[in-house]
Amino acid sequence: MADHEKFMRRALELARKCSVLTSPNPRVGCVIVRDGEIIGEGFTQPVGGNHAEVEALNDVAKRGQDCRGATVYVTLEPCSHRGRTPPCADALIRANVKRVVAAIEDPNVQVAGKGLAKLKAAGIEVLCGVLPDEARELNRGFLSRFEHGRPWVRMKVAASLDGKTALTNGESQWITSEAARRDGHEWRMRADAIMTGIGTVIKDNPRLNVRLPDTIRQPKRIVVDSQLKTPIDARVLENGGDTWIFSANASPYKIEAMQEKGVQVFSAINDTGRVDLADMMKVLAEKEINEVHVEAGATLNGALIQAGFVDEMLIYLAPCFLGSGKNMVSLNDIANLADKISFEFHEIRTIENDIRIIARLTK
Amino acid sequence: MADHEKFMRRALELARKCSVLTSPNPRVGCVIVRDGEIIGEGFTQPVGGNHAEVEALNDVAKRGQDCRGATVYVTLEPCSHRGRTPPCADALIRANVKRVVAAIEDPNVQVAGKGLAKLKAAGIEVLCGVLPDEARELNRGFLSRFEHGRPWVRMKVAASLDGKTALTNGESQWITSEAARRDGHEWRMRADAIMTGIGTVIKDNPRLNVRLPDTIRQPKRIVVDSQLKTPIDARVLENGGDTWIFSANASPYKIEAMQEKGVQVFSAINDTGRVDLADMMKVLAEKEINEVHVEAGATLNGALIQAGFVDEMLIYLAPCFLGSGKNMVSLNDIANLADKISFEFHEIRTIENDIRIIARLTK
Repeated sequence: MADHEKFMRRALELARKCSVLTSPNPRVGCVIVRDGEIIGEGFTQPVGGNHAEVEALNDVAKRGQDCRGATVYVTLEPCSHRGRTPPCADALIRANVKRVVAAIEDPNVQVAGKGLAKLKAAGIEVLCGVLPDEARELNRGFLSRFEHGRPWVRMKVAASLDGKTALTNGESQWITSEAARRDGHEWRMRADAIMTGIGTVIKDNPRLNVRLPDTIRQPKRIVVDSQLKTPIDARVLENGGDTWIFSANASPYKIEAMQEKGVQVFSAINDTGRVDLADMMKVLAEKEINEVHVEAGATLNGALIQAGFVDEMLIYLAPCFLGSGKNMVSLNDIANLADKISFEFHEIRTIENDIRIIARLTK
Repeated sequence: MADHEKFMRRALELARKCSVLTSPNPRVGCVIVRDGEIIGEGFTQPVGGNHAEVEALNDVAKRGQDCRGATVYVTLEPCSHRGRTPPCADALIRANVKRVVAAIEDPNVQVAGKGLAKLKAAGIEVLCGVLPDEARELNRGFLSRFEHGRPWVRMKVAASLDGKTALTNGESQWITSEAARRDGHEWRMRADAIMTGIGTVIKDNPRLNVRLPDTIRQPKRIVVDSQLKTPIDARVLENGGDTWIFSANASPYKIEAMQEKGVQVFSAINDTGRVDLADMMKVLAEKEINEVHVEAGATLNGALIQAGFVDEMLIYLAPCFLGSGKNMVSLNDIANLADKISFEFHEIRTIENDIRIIARLTK
């Protein structure tokens, strides 16, 4: 088992090298081992390119090695279906490997154990469940989409230490340091979509794009805007990723104007005339959005949290007090401490003079 | 210099062993070294007992060693005056030590360089300024009293991650975990006084004492209460440390009732009819209060911070959101982010499931 973990750790390391461009595919790493030596390595290429297993098999060939009798370590069950590329399970069978060790099963209903079954049927020894937690961590969004029918939702907040995201007069630029803001853009970059609410669009007119020197892809931009009040000249509609607006009861002529601008408008209305967040999440999963990065005001933040659609908080706290001002989240009044919104701290560190906290909501 | 730092570090280590009972005296450690070997060690005993230097000299004698030619490392300049005990400088001179290395000068006007001068005059080699920052850290309160004419003020806050110290209905027991609250009592114990405002007395009726198994002394309890509204049966007046109330415009009969109860009432009124915080700080310094631990509501917290009387924030953040509720601090409305209250993070750690942040106000 110690050896299995050692090689799986290396596969996880490779998986972490996957660029953000694998999305909507999962980030996967693969290591091929014979006689205790690594003879090939690979990780998933940008969408449309090779999966990790095929990369590793090619690497074995390139090194003039032979897969016969080898063990394949892979951070996710090999696929059994033809998607954008042929099934990896078939490639492994053809290569005559002896054994496949996977960290976790693929929750994609098209795979879901079928990949491992196919390997077994071909006489390959199969082991699943080595370092599963680490493997899950790598693909929170991909897993959430299949397990919960919605993306993994991370909510970013930048605030003073007393929890204020802006002064009473709305001023918020900038509470946290440049380093913290740059770090925020790193998180934007790894997301498939950046979401905000109409309040923030009107107040801050954000671009909602990634502004880093090495930006290789702009995520989708999503505005939750019941009445389609987004100004036609809002920055969020300018060049960048595609912009999607979720509206509830917008007038057809407004929808048309947006569509002319190249914006996709989705209608998802709930009982109270607002955007139905559950419907929105379903649409996002169907559109293969793995990770959503929310940067919104207290209203949308609170609504998403209370609906149970937030997995992770990414909070930057600056070393200052503002006293009064805007709150991080607006929740229905809580009459009892037992009804608080709870989470677990996942990581706490400093980014220059600010604190960065990653917390996971506990259901 | 490397040797000087090595032995001074040991002296600092000894100083940290001083019980909280040295107060109002400083916490001091002393190491006596000859031929590169430690021949005696000591640290300040509870008030009225020996200072560190005398303890170390006694230790040398007990070990059958001789101080002639030795170097004395001490974390604070030896005293030159007769206080509760005879001057340490005289004891060192009598012991025929060769050299005295001090971390910092004693800011007490009765010493303030006179101790070192006395040693020099007796032909002893004197060096001052080895690890001064570490030495200052040990006696923040004692130093503040002489340097700024007021105690070192630490303000404790327990809040949700969105900065709320209580629900809208006032419920606040408990937001943070038992471990964090126990840790808070450790900080109470090292303070000379625990301070709160009348709002907290009325709302929470706190005992404001130290509740730890190894409690060896109860700090003074201080209530800032302009109109002397503290109920005569308030817990803060019950057994524990002495209770002092700072009032502004209280009626004489109320003052008399309090005094009958054994409470000391100080009058310190400012232009607006409230307690004059500057006067209060002066009184506390005169009363030899080194460290004040504040556990109050947003009003007194904000007033103390805006008056510039807070040195350190001790903040416990629980992994939860409350949405609405009581703020940590109430500040005069800030119109510009440049006017925020700024500090530097000094230490960030977790206490079980909560985060503990120590931050120092930057002037």
